[in-house]
Amino acid sequence: MSQQAQELFDNFQQLTPSEFFRKNKQMLGFTGKIRSLTIVFHELITNSFDAAEEAGILPEINIELERVNKEHYILRHSDNGPGIPENYVMQVYCSMFAGSKFRNIQSRGQQGLGCSGCVLLSQMTTGEPTRVISCYKEDDELKGVKMKFKMDVKENKGLLMDKEYIKPQNTGVCIELQFKEVSYSMAEQGAFEYIRRTMIGNPHAKITFKDPSGHKYIFKRAADIVPILPKEVLPHPKGVSADDILFMSKHTDKRSYKSMLTSSLSRMSAKRINEIAERTGIDMKKRPKDMVWKEAEAIVNAFQEMKFMAPPSNGLIPIGSEQIEKGMKQILKPEFVATLTRKPVTYRGGVSFIIEAGLAYGGEAGRVVNEQRKSEIMRFANRVPLTFDQGSCAITEALKSIDWKRYGLKDFENTPLTLFVNIISTQVPYLSTGKQSVAPEPEILHEVRQSTMTLARKLQKYLRSKKAAKEKAIRSKVFENYLPVIIEEAAKLGETNIPEYNEVLAKVTRRALAELLGENIEGEEDEIEEEDAIIMEELDEFGHSINNKNNNLNNDEEDITYDDTLNNGD
Amino acid sequence: MSQQAQELFDNFQQLTPSEFFRKNKQMLGFTGKIRSLTIVFHELITNSFDAAEEAGILPEINIELERVNKEHYILRHSDNGPGIPENYVMQVYCSMFAGSKFRNIQSRGQQGLGCSGCVLLSQMTTGEPTRVISCYKEDDELKGVKMKFKMDVKENKGLLMDKEYIKPQNTGVCIELQFKEVSYSMAEQGAFEYIRRTMIGNPHAKITFKDPSGHKYIFKRAADIVPILPKEVLPHPKGVSADDILFMSKHTDKRSYKSMLTSSLSRMSAKRINEIAERTGIDMKKRPKDMVWKEAEAIVNAFQEMKFMAPPSNGLIPIGSEQIEKGMKQILKPEFVATLTRKPVTYRGGVSFIIEAGLAYGGEAGRVVNEQRKSEIMRFANRVPLTFDQGSCAITEALKSIDWKRYGLKDFENTPLTLFVNIISTQVPYLSTGKQSVAPEPEILHEVRQSTMTLARKLQKYLRSKKAAKEKAIRSKVFENYLPVIIEEAAKLGETNIPEYNEVLAKVTRRALAELLGENIEGEEDEIEEEDAIIMEELDEFGHSINNKNNNLNNDEEDITYDDTLNNGD
Repeated sequence: MSQQAQELFDNFQQLTPSEFFRKNKQMLGFTGKIRSLTIVFHELITNSFDAAEEAGILPEINIELERVNKEHYILRHSDNGPGIPENYVMQVYCSMFAGSKFRNIQSRGQQGLGCSGCVLLSQMTTGEPTRVISCYKEDDELKGVKMKFKMDVKENKGLLMDKEYIKPQNTGVCIELQFKEVSYSMAEQGAFEYIRRTMIGNPHAKITFKDPSGHKYIFKRAADIVPILPKEVLPHPKGVSADDILFMSKHTDKRSYKSMLTSSLSRMSAKRINEIAERTGIDMKKRPKDMVWKEAEAIVNAFQEMKFMAPPSNGLIPIGSEQIEKGMKQILKPEFVATLTRKPVTYRGGVSFIIEAGLAYGGEAGRVVNEQRKSEIMRFANRVPLTFDQGSCAITEALKSIDWKRYGLKDFENTPLTLFVNIISTQVPYLSTGKQSVAPEPEILHEVRQSTMTLARKLQKYLRSKKAAKEKAIRSKVFENYLPVIIEEAAKLGETNIPEYNEVLAKVTRRALAELLGENIEGEEDEIEEEDAIIMEELDEFGHSINNKNNNLNNDEEDITYDDTLNNGD
Repeated sequence: MSQQAQELFDNFQQLTPSEFFRKNKQMLGFTGKIRSLTIVFHELITNSFDAAEEAGILPEINIELERVNKEHYILRHSDNGPGIPENYVMQVYCSMFAGSKFRNIQSRGQQGLGCSGCVLLSQMTTGEPTRVISCYKEDDELKGVKMKFKMDVKENKGLLMDKEYIKPQNTGVCIELQFKEVSYSMAEQGAFEYIRRTMIGNPHAKITFKDPSGHKYIFKRAADIVPILPKEVLPHPKGVSADDILFMSKHTDKRSYKSMLTSSLSRMSAKRINEIAERTGIDMKKRPKDMVWKEAEAIVNAFQEMKFMAPPSNGLIPIGSEQIEKGMKQILKPEFVATLTRKPVTYRGGVSFIIEAGLAYGGEAGRVVNEQRKSEIMRFANRVPLTFDQGSCAITEALKSIDWKRYGLKDFENTPLTLFVNIISTQVPYLSTGKQSVAPEPEILHEVRQSTMTLARKLQKYLRSKKAAKEKAIRSKVFENYLPVIIEEAAKLGETNIPEYNEVLAKVTRRALAELLGENIEGEEDEIEEEDAIIMEELDEFGHSINNKNNNLNNDEEDITYDDTLNNGD
C-alpha cells in the first residue's frame, strides 16, 4: 500500500471546457436524437436573434435542413445580423466559455456554450468541419469571409482548414453544420414545434424553414416593431455579494474604492459613497487592490441597510402584452386570449426580472393528444422557448400549485388551453448548462403564480358570460316560439285579426328578455354580464357558485399566505 | 450602425471554468440554503469514499459542523483515506475540471468539479481561506502537510497562503471550510438525511457526525467487508464512437492502428484486428496520427457488425443484495425487505451498468409527512444518494411508470415503503454538472422497471400471506371457542365425563385447520401459503383476486411491450 497516494494521482489531468463537454455532451442538452437536433436549432436561432437585436435589426432567419440519409442531416442557417469580425469567428464557434454576453445585459444566450456546443456535436457525430460565411462592417466597409474549420478539443480553440475573402451584399452570418445520430420530428419536443413556439415569443421576427421533405414554411412577422435595444445595466447594490465586490476590486482599473463603486454599480452617487464611508468607517480613497474581505463584507452589509431606488428597469425589455397577444393569436387562433406584463421586481435581493404571461383558450390552443386537445404550458426565458426538463423548472412548479377548479376549470388537463410564461432578466438563473429550466427562486414562483391567477380570473369571467349568453339564447328561443301562439290565441279570443308581428319580434324579444333580467342594455355590459352569469350559476348549481365567488374574493388572502412562505422559507 | 459588429465584440471574453461556475453556482447544485449545505456534504463524503476504496481502506469519516452564528458555519471533515500528495492538494481543491477520475473506472465522482465547487462556495460566501491537512505515504515514508489557500478564480488554480510540514500518525485528509448563506436542516433534502441515505448505500462505511447542537451521531458499519477494488476497464468496441477513435488516434503514443486499438479497447486480439482489416480494407500498420474520419467511421461500423463478448463486468462492483439488505434493515428496521442485484447490461451500445434495488415495507420505512408514513424513493448512483432534481431522473421516470395496483398497493403514495435504486457504472450519464439526475437512457429505464417489479411481486406475496395468516388466526380462534362447547354437549349427549381436551386443543386445531384447507404442514410452506392466500382472497373478494393473479402472470407480456418501445424509440 506504500506509494498508494502517488499511484492514485498518476492519472491526474486538467481538462479544457471542450474536453469536459465532449465527455458530458448530455450536459449541453444533447440527449436523445430528437432533443439533440432541437437544441441545435435553439442555440443557432437564439444567437441570431441576440446579434440582430443588439445591432437594432429586425431579425430574419433562413433555415434549411437537408436529409442526406437516415439520421444524417446537413443544416444551413443564415441570419441578417451584424456578422462576426473575422478574428472572432473561430472563438465564437470553437472556444467554450467564450463570448460577449457575460455582461449584465438581457440576452437569450449568456454562457458562451451554445454555438460551440453545436460545432462540437457536429464534429463528434460526423467528423466534418464547420463552414461559416461572415459578412460584417468594419471601418464603414462591408467585408466578407468564408471559413472552414474544426474544433481542437484539447486546446478549446479552432483549427483553420480553409479561408477565402468574398464580396458581400449585406451583413449576416451563414453557418453549415452536419449531424448524424439526430432526428427531425414534428413532436412536441421536436425542431418544428420549437420554431412555432419561438414565433409566439418573438412576433417581430421572421423565419423561413425548409424541412427535409423540401416543404417551405414561412413564419411571418406578427408585429413590425423594431425591438428596443436592451441596455447593459450595472449591478444593483442590493444584488451584489461581498465576493462580487472583492472580485471587482482585484480586477478593476479604478484607483479608489469610491471610483470603483461608482463606476461598477447602479444607483451610486457621491452622497451614497459618503453614507457608506460613515456606516463602515472605511476610507473610500483607498486603492481597490488593497481591499480585504472584511471591508467588502462591511460594504455589502451597509448596502443591505441603506435605501436605494429599485434597479433601473430600462435594461429589461419585455415582449409586451400586446405583442404576446398578437403572437398567440397568429399561431393559436384562439377563441379567447388574455395577456399581461408584470412590473419589474427582483430576486436574490437585487437581480431584476419581469414575468409576462398569456392564456389562450379554444381554437388551436392546447396540444393535441390522441386527437383530443389538452392544456399545454409554454415556458420562455428572455423570449426563448424552454422545451425540456420542465419537471424541475420554477415556472412548472408555480403553475402546478394553482388550484384551477377555483377558476371554473374542473378538468384542467383536458382543457384546450395554452399557458405562456416568459421570464425576462439580465441574469436568468438556469439550473443547468443545458439552459432548459429556471431555478425555483421564491420571488419568481410568486410572480408566475400572480400573473397566471390574474389571467385565470379573466378566463373564468369569459367562460361565465359565454355560458350566460348561451342560456339567454335558449330562453329567447323559447320566447320566440311561444309568442306567436299567444298572439294568435289572443287574437282569436279578442275576435280580431292576427297582427303582423314577425318584423318586430326580434327587437321585442331582446328588450323583453333584458327587462325580465333587470339588465341595462347600453353601457357597462361587461360587469352586468358577470353578475348575470353568477345568477345563472346560482340557479343552475343550487348556490354552488356562491362558494366559488367567495373563493375568488379570497384570492388576495391566499396570496398573503404565499407571501408568508416567502419570508419564512429559505 | 457602422462598426456595430466590432463594438459588439469589444467585450468578448474567455472565462476559466472557475469563473464560469462562480457566475453560475446553481449549476453545481448550489441553490437554496439547505440544498447548498447538502451538496457540500455530498461532495466531501463522495471524495473520501472514493479515495479510501481505491486504496483498499474501509472508509471512516468524521464530520463536525459548528454554527458560528445564524447561517455561518464551520465544517471540519476528515477521512482515513490514502491522503493527497502535497503537490496535488491545491489542484484537487482549486482547479475545476481537474481530477484523477477521467478514466473508465467506477467511482462516485467523475467530473473534477466537486471539491473545488465546495472551496468556491466557501470563498464566495465568507472570503475565508480553505485549510487542509494531508497525510500520505511517499517512498514508504509517512508525510504530512498543513496548508492554507484560496482559489484564484481568474486562473482556475490555488493561491497558497501558508504551509507547514507536520508529523502524521496515519494517512488521511482533513479539510476545514467556512460557509455563510447555508442552513443545516433535518428535512428530506437536508444534510442529516443525506448521511442517513449514504449509510444505506454504503453499509461498509462508518460516519461520525457532530451536529451544530453538539449532538454526536455514530453511524456504525452494518457490514465489515473490505470493498472490492473497482478496476479500470478499457472501453468496449460497441461503446465507442468514430470521434472517440479519432480522438484516441491523435493523442496515443502507439505506433500503429493495431497497437492503438489493442491497447485502448477491451475484447481486442490479433484475430479481431485481422477481422477489422478484412472488413474495412484498412492497413492496420498505419500510423495513428494519419487516421482520417472515414477510417474511424469504417472501424466503428465494423465494430457494430462484429460479435464481441459483453464488456468485462469486473470493473463494476455492485453493493450486493445482501449488503443492501443489511443497510436497509439497520437504518429502516422494516417489517419486510427484499433486495436484488441485476446482471450487468449496457446502454449506448457498450457502456455497462448494473441496477440494484431494494424494497422495505413497514417499520421505519417511508418518509413521515404530517405524522403519517408515505412511500419514498431513494435514488443512488455508484452508491451516492441523489437528493435533488428527481423530476427529470430516469429512476423516477421508470418507477412512475409502474402500476402499483397490480401488486396489491391500492394507494402507493400512502404506503409505508422505501424503494431503493442504485445504478452502478463506470460512466453514469448525469444530466447536469450538479450530478443529481440520470439521463433516461431506454436500457436504464428498462432495468429499473424490471428490478422494481420483481421486488413488488415479492412484497405482494408477503402481504397476501400476512393477510392469510391473519384470517387463519381468526378462524382458528373461532374453532377454539366452539370446540369446548361441542365437546361438552357431546359428552352430555353420550352421558360420559367431559374429557381433558385443553392440552391437545392447540395441536388439534392447527392440524384440523390445515386438513380443512388441504394444506401440507411440512415443507414447501411458502408456495402453499401463497395458494392459500389466493384462495382466501377469492373467498373474500368474490373472485376479484383472480384477475389480480392473471395480471401477475401477464407481467412478462407487459415487459415485452416495453422492449418493443425500446427498439422503436429514439
